Amino acid sequence: MKDRIRNKTFLDHIMTAEEAAALIRNGDVIATSGFTGAGYPKAVPEALAQHMETAHASGEPFTVRLLTGASTGPQLDGALARVNGVAFRCPYNGDTTMRTRINEGSTLYLDMHLGQVAHKARQGQFGRPDVAIIEAVAVTPDGQLILSSSVGNSPTWVQLADKIIIEINTWQNPELAGIHDIWGDARMPPDGQVIPLMRPGDRIGSNTLPIDLDRLAAVVITDEPDRNAPFAEPDTTARQIAGHVMAFFEHEVKHGRLPPSLLPLQSGVGNIANAVLEGLNASRFDNLTGFSEVIQDGMLSMLESGRMKVASASSFSLSPEAAHRINDNAAFFRQKIVLRQQEVSNSPELIRRLGIIAMNGMIEADIYGNVNSTCIMGSRIQNGIGGSGDFARNAFLSLFVSPSTARSGKISAFVPMVPHTDHILQDVQIIVSEQGLADLRGLAPVERAREVINKCAHPDFRPALQDYFEQARRHSFGQHIPHHLPTALAWHQRYTETGSMAG
Amino acid sequence: MKDRIRNKTFLDHIMTAEEAAALIRNGDVIATSGFTGAGYPKAVPEALAQHMETAHASGEPFTVRLLTGASTGPQLDGALARVNGVAFRCPYNGDTTMRTRINEGSTLYLDMHLGQVAHKARQGQFGRPDVAIIEAVAVTPDGQLILSSSVGNSPTWVQLADKIIIEINTWQNPELAGIHDIWGDARMPPDGQVIPLMRPGDRIGSNTLPIDLDRLAAVVITDEPDRNAPFAEPDTTARQIAGHVMAFFEHEVKHGRLPPSLLPLQSGVGNIANAVLEGLNASRFDNLTGFSEVIQDGMLSMLESGRMKVASASSFSLSPEAAHRINDNAAFFRQKIVLRQQEVSNSPELIRRLGIIAMNGMIEADIYGNVNSTCIMGSRIQNGIGGSGDFARNAFLSLFVSPSTARSGKISAFVPMVPHTDHILQDVQIIVSEQGLADLRGLAPVERAREVINKCAHPDFRPALQDYFEQARRHSFGQHIPHHLPTALAWHQRYTETGSMAG
Repeated sequence: MKDRIRNKTFLDHIMTAEEAAALIRNGDVIATSGFTGAGYPKAVPEALAQHMETAHASGEPFTVRLLTGASTGPQLDGALARVNGVAFRCPYNGDTTMRTRINEGSTLYLDMHLGQVAHKARQGQFGRPDVAIIEAVAVTPDGQLILSSSVGNSPTWVQLADKIIIEINTWQNPELAGIHDIWGDARMPPDGQVIPLMRPGDRIGSNTLPIDLDRLAAVVITDEPDRNAPFAEPDTTARQIAGHVMAFFEHEVKHGRLPPSLLPLQSGVGNIANAVLEGLNASRFDNLTGFSEVIQDGMLSMLESGRMKVASASSFSLSPEAAHRINDNAAFFRQKIVLRQQEVSNSPELIRRLGIIAMNGMIEADIYGNVNSTCIMGSRIQNGIGGSGDFARNAFLSLFVSPSTARSGKISAFVPMVPHTDHILQDVQIIVSEQGLADLRGLAPVERAREVINKCAHPDFRPALQDYFEQARRHSFGQHIPHHLPTALAWHQRYTETGSMAG
Repeated sequence: MKDRIRNKTFLDHIMTAEEAAALIRNGDVIATSGFTGAGYPKAVPEALAQHMETAHASGEPFTVRLLTGASTGPQLDGALARVNGVAFRCPYNGDTTMRTRINEGSTLYLDMHLGQVAHKARQGQFGRPDVAIIEAVAVTPDGQLILSSSVGNSPTWVQLADKIIIEINTWQNPELAGIHDIWGDARMPPDGQVIPLMRPGDRIGSNTLPIDLDRLAAVVITDEPDRNAPFAEPDTTARQIAGHVMAFFEHEVKHGRLPPSLLPLQSGVGNIANAVLEGLNASRFDNLTGFSEVIQDGMLSMLESGRMKVASASSFSLSPEAAHRINDNAAFFRQKIVLRQQEVSNSPELIRRLGIIAMNGMIEADIYGNVNSTCIMGSRIQNGIGGSGDFARNAFLSLFVSPSTARSGKISAFVPMVPHTDHILQDVQIIVSEQGLADLRGLAPVERAREVINKCAHPDFRPALQDYFEQARRHSFGQHIPHHLPTALAWHQRYTETGSMAG
């Protein structure tokens, strides 16, 4: 262990996960590392869940308020949700058990913009976290952390928390050392600072994260992989969407609206995003860069092929196979990848300055191009807004992608009115489905509607959307964004009653 | 005239408004100065409207596509709308005749974030403007413009437009010279720049705006005041809202979450905003600063009293009486006020860095705190989103204010679901009505609903909102943001049918 932990204070604080978890009390605010299922603590949360289960069995309350970077994994969100141990969860969650708790109403969920969490935490919005639990791969002789497969909000949590628990995960490759870039100058107004980053690969901070050793409460050794899930091969729909995106990029370059090497790419996670990245990897575009919140398999392949020069993110989200490639070639990837805290990876200042091309998935869009990314039928959370708002509003180009239907054609991704809005029409410039690409830039709402209906909607739903639009124009209170209120949400209502949006 | 125009090329181009307007053709894209009714061109648009009227009378089409800074006045938006001469309008409009054209569907309206217009224009989103029409107070010997009572998008319009028409308005005080700060470094990605502004009063650019003399097409002399409308004295409701805001600020300072001189203030226009500023002027807060898109009477009074040290904006929006105060004391106000182009005044980078306290009005909020700022009953445009999205999302604190009812109590400003969303719940932290203040920071949606209903809604509507919330919790598809789709929009539907939201 001394090759991983080269500091005596840390060595002196080694204990079991059970002992560390015993430091946590009912009602505590727990702030953890972890972002898109990477670099989250694993052993202490599982031990905490056992303590909770024991308490609950003897009729005692034991819940915590849980702050993270973004989504974690089964050992953290899953384990705590299973014992119903989380009263409040913020921000982004992707765990199915936790999702169930939120949607049944037993866990409160604050779904924040990922780029704002640290700033709001320093404002005191969540109170002072009682315990930070941070995964690291190693500790330097002077007691600084070498973080693992994500940075997330860890710099802020160790700054604010009363006690600090560190998990040293020996599964993670110690050669990740040097991949991180932790900016220490995030000062609060009125003393806010310029973030001095001009290119996606710039390094503006330190490779390691210092902590206050007086608040170090426990060090726990673990050896567990991140929740790395295999990607499915892109299906026909995903490849068609990717094809439309490629053609659009080529068109924009040809007309001089994008440089030949495009602009830094942000991409959400998932099979469609991966198909787009694979499309780029097979394209003639060269010297690409990434400035995203997460690096997934597709971006890794582009770095390996040389198609992409450098990628910046806050985290990995990899298949097990790709995670092994990182571990086997850490020295190579350390030159090509920078992992940053999420208030830098998702900074509006940087997204605007660098001119990001933002590509995000969605649940549905309405005919005017308002996007619902989070709430199925307006009320049931899927995952969360994540960084999509940080990127979409400030991007040079903001694309939203989705298959035109879901649930074997019972749900249309294009609807009369979204019952929940995450991205207002001003922030949605391009919408892509397997049917086509709607370029909404510079268009007024009624022009947008024609594009969305004709280019993106599935032919099975197009006539009904056209009918709605015409009815709306006939009956609307105003013609700026025509709506027919009695039927605006009828599709969603029908789905909740019959299991299908189709009339 | 030679004291105003000290450049020969400009003098050589002096012509009548009719002659200048004759340079404009059917289908042209016209890009003008003007922001919140200040500093917009007056004579050429009126002459253009006459040309249009003549053309229309002989059965010929004559419309233009109109880009501005923000709202203008009766001589521009009003005159062109009266002859139905605008096919497309972007961004913010406040003119009643133009509003009618938009809501009847004869003018298309693209309601953009004010801070993004210049950036998107440089991307080519609107094509190349055919003609820029810019109001100025004077011209320097080397042919640079001293702008008038707003900066808006003028630096971008003169950069992009094919022809440039300048109106020299002798009504505007030439001593405005020195009040403007025009940042010339707004480069496009991948060569984007840091905006090197660290404090609200910093000057980062030039007092004057250079133009390409080869594209100067006409110079027209005018002598007309801006559309300055008197403010009504704040009524009881406005004073109550201001009182809640003052108490909140005091509470935040006491708890160390705001510095004693607060943080730079952004404030929308209107009587409530003015009442809040008057409240601050009568308070013990000191050394205040403003970083807003517009300076209205209330901020002027604070500068005069010394309560506020400096105010930054893109424009004035003053009563006639206050406009005279500016004209009479230009030398004083030039030291206290900086007018910037709107991509600087409304920059997300600066709003986050400086830590703005954003205060904006709204039409309505739903119980979860999603805000509709623009579309009455979801479809009829009132004014536009303006800079409220630039400020609310990136602010240190984001407040929305509104009386709890409108139209003599027939409309509730707090509703089950907003039929149009401008500000998603993540961007709405504090809501204030005359009933009270809902502090929504750190709360999950169902907690937000209880606050909004109990603190902000009018007692006449509170039981019905509570009923909706309970029904939603019983019937919702998911409990994250409970909704009952069959009745979610019933209040708005009822209003359009009966003229009242009350059941």
